[in-house]
Amino acid sequence: MAATLKDVALKAGVSRSAVSRTFTPGASVSARTRAAVERAALELGYAPNALASSLTTGRTKLIGLIANNFRNPLILEVFELFTLGLQARGLKPLVVNLSGATNPAESVRMLKQYSVDGVIVASSTLPVSFAAAFAEAGLPVVHTFGRASTAPIVPVVGIDNHACGRMAADVLVKRGYRRVGFLGGPAEATSTQDRAAGFAAGLRDHPDRTFETSYASAYAFDAGRVAMQRLLAREPAEAYFCGDDLLALGALSAIEDAGLRVPDDIGLIGLNDMEMARWETNRLTTIRQPLAAIITASIDLVVETIESPDRPPEVRLFPCTFIERGTLRAVP
Amino acid sequence: MAATLKDVALKAGVSRSAVSRTFTPGASVSARTRAAVERAALELGYAPNALASSLTTGRTKLIGLIANNFRNPLILEVFELFTLGLQARGLKPLVVNLSGATNPAESVRMLKQYSVDGVIVASSTLPVSFAAAFAEAGLPVVHTFGRASTAPIVPVVGIDNHACGRMAADVLVKRGYRRVGFLGGPAEATSTQDRAAGFAAGLRDHPDRTFETSYASAYAFDAGRVAMQRLLAREPAEAYFCGDDLLALGALSAIEDAGLRVPDDIGLIGLNDMEMARWETNRLTTIRQPLAAIITASIDLVVETIESPDRPPEVRLFPCTFIERGTLRAVP
Repeated sequence: MAATLKDVALKAGVSRSAVSRTFTPGASVSARTRAAVERAALELGYAPNALASSLTTGRTKLIGLIANNFRNPLILEVFELFTLGLQARGLKPLVVNLSGATNPAESVRMLKQYSVDGVIVASSTLPVSFAAAFAEAGLPVVHTFGRASTAPIVPVVGIDNHACGRMAADVLVKRGYRRVGFLGGPAEATSTQDRAAGFAAGLRDHPDRTFETSYASAYAFDAGRVAMQRLLAREPAEAYFCGDDLLALGALSAIEDAGLRVPDDIGLIGLNDMEMARWETNRLTTIRQPLAAIITASIDLVVETIESPDRPPEVRLFPCTFIERGTLRAVP
Repeated sequence: MAATLKDVALKAGVSRSAVSRTFTPGASVSARTRAAVERAALELGYAPNALASSLTTGRTKLIGLIANNFRNPLILEVFELFTLGLQARGLKPLVVNLSGATNPAESVRMLKQYSVDGVIVASSTLPVSFAAAFAEAGLPVVHTFGRASTAPIVPVVGIDNHACGRMAADVLVKRGYRRVGFLGGPAEATSTQDRAAGFAAGLRDHPDRTFETSYASAYAFDAGRVAMQRLLAREPAEAYFCGDDLLALGALSAIEDAGLRVPDDIGLIGLNDMEMARWETNRLTTIRQPLAAIITASIDLVVETIESPDRPPEVRLFPCTFIERGTLRAVP
């Protein structure tokens, strides 16, 4: 016969409430009590039954965490922060891989089958129709890295990509670059569209500078490398704002292979400040996206949306920071 | 009132069996029927209820996917393969982050709370006591990247790390290196221990060569860099077998910073063949671990263990391949 909470309390010599608190994430319990309860629970083979508890509460505590670009090292930090953040709140991260998914209806069906309480879409490249379809199907959803809007269809957490583009333009102008370029990610990604628009807006204030825009096929190293090789084949700009750090590293590789140097011949600035940007081999000048704050807010917001499904969707944006390293020349 | 399977069949103009097959992963159904069923299901708000189905079958279809080193880019490929592989079989990957976990009992409790059908521990650095504790608690478990053994406590899928160490030794000997070194990951990781032992065994056949062994604090770029800086401070070896590709990239960075060149001054060979090893900036000579085969086998084995909990644990090992790129000198 399965051990009960009462059995555990008796064996551990603590109150039933202490056992309950030990198994309630976030509840207060002393280290000594926790240890006694865990030892007793392990010896008795006791574990609170999530399935039974789901039936009482109607909640599974499962949060679908949707991603579609597992080739970008930024995802490592995103997964690390999401899994630890969700676990700390007693929630369970169910990772859904929508790489190459094109059919929102099929993804809705899959998520409904998964019995998740809510969904976090962590992507700026998955078509907006996906998050919208999840919401329409009655799934509480938050779009992390989604597009800022004054009338959002679903809650959005992320950065002001337009402001980031402007920041990059300002930096390049101040460094004295006269011919500059935006080397974006996929043209259909809202993050790339907004970064491009902000960059263009920033440069329009400086009619003495010229700029050009081009797109890589993905936020990927090879895509950045190929795109830069294409740019180098004709007359390249003096400096590029790259759609993200990974594109910037691909571009850096192409520039060095062509016998040119960064920042002496061509300057580069990325976006994200992923861990690899800090590696001494890269020393990438970039714009930092505050990941920890974004992910904490995303978890907060999905929990709030689950609790109050009718609350109007809100947008939470976090400021980005310029990070100076070694890929732009100094102020002239 | 919630729509039923019958409602969907009526609306879509197909048989109930066709609806059922549409929602059974892997079952055969024409694209046309699938489209009709999905449209009808979406319009009616129908979704097969996983919770209800769990109660009938006693299965949640949740597989706990345990990882503890989210800073190693290899995890990107591991997650991509696991999530797609599990999804294709109608299973749901529940990612459990055990970074820094030291208490197997607490992890057992967490996994029991998660109501998973089985667990895949994808780590060579998490203490072996964890997988053993999960099995002891009655959880079907597979240890991916675990230690090969003739009497395994839990099923293991991975590579023969000892043979890999030997392969690295043979390559370095054939390239004419006389003083070689092993720059391992954490000394307590079974993967590093076995690679070190195989490397030493391979070199014992060549008493004219000398070798030394050292360890980095983690499978991490910075750890490899710091470890190599320490080696460079006294007389370094002519070539190093690095515990994994990420350590090799850290070592490469330290060597170049010291004004030395790879492979002219010091040779390097890694292990894994993670995507970054192929980047033109790195061109890392390495030993490839066949990830796709390992992960497919891990999923097969966890499913078999769930179906037949009493089957004796088995070990499935896959051969590794030497990958020549740019970080070892040619055969003299």
